[in-house]
Amino acid sequence: MTQHVGIIDLGSNTARMIVVQYQPHHSFKLVEEVKENVRLAHNVGPDNQLQAQPIAKALETLRMFGNFCRAMGVNEVVAVATSAVRDAANQTSFLAQVKEETGLDLRVLSGDEEAYYSYLGMINTLGVSNGFMFDIGGGSVELALVRGRGLANTTSLPLGTVRLTEQILRSDTPSKAELKALDRHVDEALAGLDWFRPQGSKLPLIGVGGTVRNLAKLEQRAQRYPLDIVHGYTMSLQRVDEWASRLSKLNRNEREQLEGLNNDRADVITAGVLLIQALMQRCGADSLWICGHGLRDGIFYEHFLRGSQPPLLSDVRQFSVANLARIYGYNVLHVAKVRELSLSLFDQLQSLHGYGAWERELLEATSMVHDIGVAVNFYDHHKHGLYLILNSMLNGYTHREMAMIGLLTRHHRKGGVTDAGLGGVLAEGDLERLGKLSALLRIAEYLERSKSQVVQGVDCKIEKQQVRISVQAVGDASIEIWDANRKTNLFRKAYGVEVVIE
Amino acid sequence: MTQHVGIIDLGSNTARMIVVQYQPHHSFKLVEEVKENVRLAHNVGPDNQLQAQPIAKALETLRMFGNFCRAMGVNEVVAVATSAVRDAANQTSFLAQVKEETGLDLRVLSGDEEAYYSYLGMINTLGVSNGFMFDIGGGSVELALVRGRGLANTTSLPLGTVRLTEQILRSDTPSKAELKALDRHVDEALAGLDWFRPQGSKLPLIGVGGTVRNLAKLEQRAQRYPLDIVHGYTMSLQRVDEWASRLSKLNRNEREQLEGLNNDRADVITAGVLLIQALMQRCGADSLWICGHGLRDGIFYEHFLRGSQPPLLSDVRQFSVANLARIYGYNVLHVAKVRELSLSLFDQLQSLHGYGAWERELLEATSMVHDIGVAVNFYDHHKHGLYLILNSMLNGYTHREMAMIGLLTRHHRKGGVTDAGLGGVLAEGDLERLGKLSALLRIAEYLERSKSQVVQGVDCKIEKQQVRISVQAVGDASIEIWDANRKTNLFRKAYGVEVVIE
Repeated sequence: MTQHVGIIDLGSNTARMIVVQYQPHHSFKLVEEVKENVRLAHNVGPDNQLQAQPIAKALETLRMFGNFCRAMGVNEVVAVATSAVRDAANQTSFLAQVKEETGLDLRVLSGDEEAYYSYLGMINTLGVSNGFMFDIGGGSVELALVRGRGLANTTSLPLGTVRLTEQILRSDTPSKAELKALDRHVDEALAGLDWFRPQGSKLPLIGVGGTVRNLAKLEQRAQRYPLDIVHGYTMSLQRVDEWASRLSKLNRNEREQLEGLNNDRADVITAGVLLIQALMQRCGADSLWICGHGLRDGIFYEHFLRGSQPPLLSDVRQFSVANLARIYGYNVLHVAKVRELSLSLFDQLQSLHGYGAWERELLEATSMVHDIGVAVNFYDHHKHGLYLILNSMLNGYTHREMAMIGLLTRHHRKGGVTDAGLGGVLAEGDLERLGKLSALLRIAEYLERSKSQVVQGVDCKIEKQQVRISVQAVGDASIEIWDANRKTNLFRKAYGVEVVIE
Repeated sequence: MTQHVGIIDLGSNTARMIVVQYQPHHSFKLVEEVKENVRLAHNVGPDNQLQAQPIAKALETLRMFGNFCRAMGVNEVVAVATSAVRDAANQTSFLAQVKEETGLDLRVLSGDEEAYYSYLGMINTLGVSNGFMFDIGGGSVELALVRGRGLANTTSLPLGTVRLTEQILRSDTPSKAELKALDRHVDEALAGLDWFRPQGSKLPLIGVGGTVRNLAKLEQRAQRYPLDIVHGYTMSLQRVDEWASRLSKLNRNEREQLEGLNNDRADVITAGVLLIQALMQRCGADSLWICGHGLRDGIFYEHFLRGSQPPLLSDVRQFSVANLARIYGYNVLHVAKVRELSLSLFDQLQSLHGYGAWERELLEATSMVHDIGVAVNFYDHHKHGLYLILNSMLNGYTHREMAMIGLLTRHHRKGGVTDAGLGGVLAEGDLERLGKLSALLRIAEYLERSKSQVVQGVDCKIEKQQVRISVQAVGDASIEIWDANRKTNLFRKAYGVEVVIE
């Protein structure tokens, strides 16, 4: 049965709530996000007292979230607070006030718990098994080391972007002395972490949080990147160095002019990027992976995968493809048959295309989602499918893989092979790959044209000048065969041989 | 309860089936279309005998359609046949064979019935009340006169594109003599129709069928038209004249090179466009409206609106907006409140914007669909809303109106006003209109931020330098008011005055 859970996260800067519609272990969809700039940690002095005005704003915001949940029929609410409340001297009275005025039981996460949920959010949405990771908030940064998809180490340090900016980078354009002080401050904070150091083999650094997402957006705009997706995007250390040095020289007004910069971040982005740079250097990472999912997602996965310990999807890619198919209501039998037929063609024609497990997996994933575009409009649903795939988030795949699955979907029915403007994320040979894989998918799709599994299987014979595909059918498959034969142009072009289906 | 109906249409050239998922009188969505090139009328001689080969193809196709319906759980099937079967000397034996081999009761439509269903398909999807109309098939053309949304006259003439091409335009490039013969032939066929003549006031000519859709596509490509929609597109007589004269000079090979031409139509497009030109001249129309819905849709509406006599939607625009909201599962209470608040702002600020009923209706329609983009992704759902609106078909609206509703949706949450590349379908002043209307919608949306109808109403006072909006609330609306005040930039820019919400 479909349920709705609201997950509230009260941070030092922002209060956020997501509402997720889900069926445990089966499928989910984010249906709402509300965000308020509460600035709870504002004007907290050395005595760590949350101030009256931010407290009032936090209470109003939580009350509004509560109204929201009641109106939306959200029956479960999980509310957590991070460093601002964790460190507050008046934490107890604040929690009591929240409970009294909003009814919410605010759970205060320890730094390790915060790092754990960030990790859960990341490990269930990115296709990595090993790496360092960080989640930068306004008040603190959580660090972790991930090994074999497990959490090997965590820590939380008081190096949030608001904190670093207010305490150290106080000038409009940071002075040399401030930059040096920041560097020293970070160095000292990291000094005791013996696990946050270069490992036997190079590991990537995975970044969570608004700062790293905004860095990715700046870079994408500068590169005229064709996708509007930051999750799964990667940057080299060199590019991070360049941004750190560029941002250090700008004042707020100049930062605000940067294409892609979120104005709310204009005051803290410099400290954030300098911190990211320092983290990369420290752990010896040469690439930065941007992860668009963190703390709230981690809490959600714990909820979604209840009963699983640890709450990890066994296969992120497989799950997210199935989830996409499920939320758009796919035809299980049709999809299963198209998958079977296209993979059977792929395997039997291996000597013609020479591709391996990677291409096979892309073909399989595409067969799952090839019809989701019908949710927009039956007409041109292959084009709408590409749009949905690029905008609904296929977790665990690289951008190149997402583009490939989107483009295979785009070509499953008709038309010649095109990169649809996505050339910038493809690699050499991908257009040829696309042609060869689409050709197989298209034959499978037309053999399943009546969506009634009339064609049960295919048997390929590779002859000198042609490929002969014999169809095993239950009942009359003459129209399917006739149609599939009419859709073999792409095959002929891609493989350079004739094909006959009979 | 959701039902599925399959509607099969066996024409002279093509056999088509659509499958529509629907709840009677409430909502529907086309979920499948299957099309086969059967060419049933092929090689029918003067003795009007359907030939063995096309009959076999038709039977196989109908059997495939039947498999399809069974597999998809389609419980009702309506199957009709048009001129090829209507005119066939061996009609009785063909029908018996269909019944025996596929179980289908093929209903043979008379020419008048065919015209009636075309009209039903058109009148429930276009926002016109008066006009001449035609539906060109391979074998016949149906003509009608529509008055006050009613069907005043109909007739069916044996002037289908395949027939005209095979009988008259036989040369690769039509000869002068053939062109003259076609003209005379059409003239003679129309001679007796005293109602198909210029009326008191100029009426448009509305065209249904693949030929006119393809003509529109040719014109759109030539004009680099920004929308990929033919339904509701209009062309002047002059542009039709130019295409008729251009096509007359081309051979098949040259026609196939035309950008936008469907290759299946390369042999018959010339006869079709010449016929359209002749019809426009004959009835004195100076504009051609392209209608993307015809016979099958008409049969569907009879089904969908069962019990209504005649089966006409009382308001095409209103219905299609509601239908769009329904198929994407809208939040009824939230939408109702955003509509109420934005229209209330619109009415109270009338002296500031000076707009009338047309703009009010656009604002109202947008409030219904402003959140549908969440079906793609909550993030950027305003952008996805624009995509869905332009691709899911808002019937009854002009392309300019669709673009306006899409762009209002695009601007309901954030960002400055942009035409998003749709400048080519907007008119002068529309960007300003967009700014002023979006500003109202955005305030309404943020006053309904918690989706819990905390804000019940608004009361506007227009003062010298500013607009003062007082909010009537049940409960605490401080966050809503705070947020709405943060979203007034657009208002200030669009109206050039300050605004305070309190």
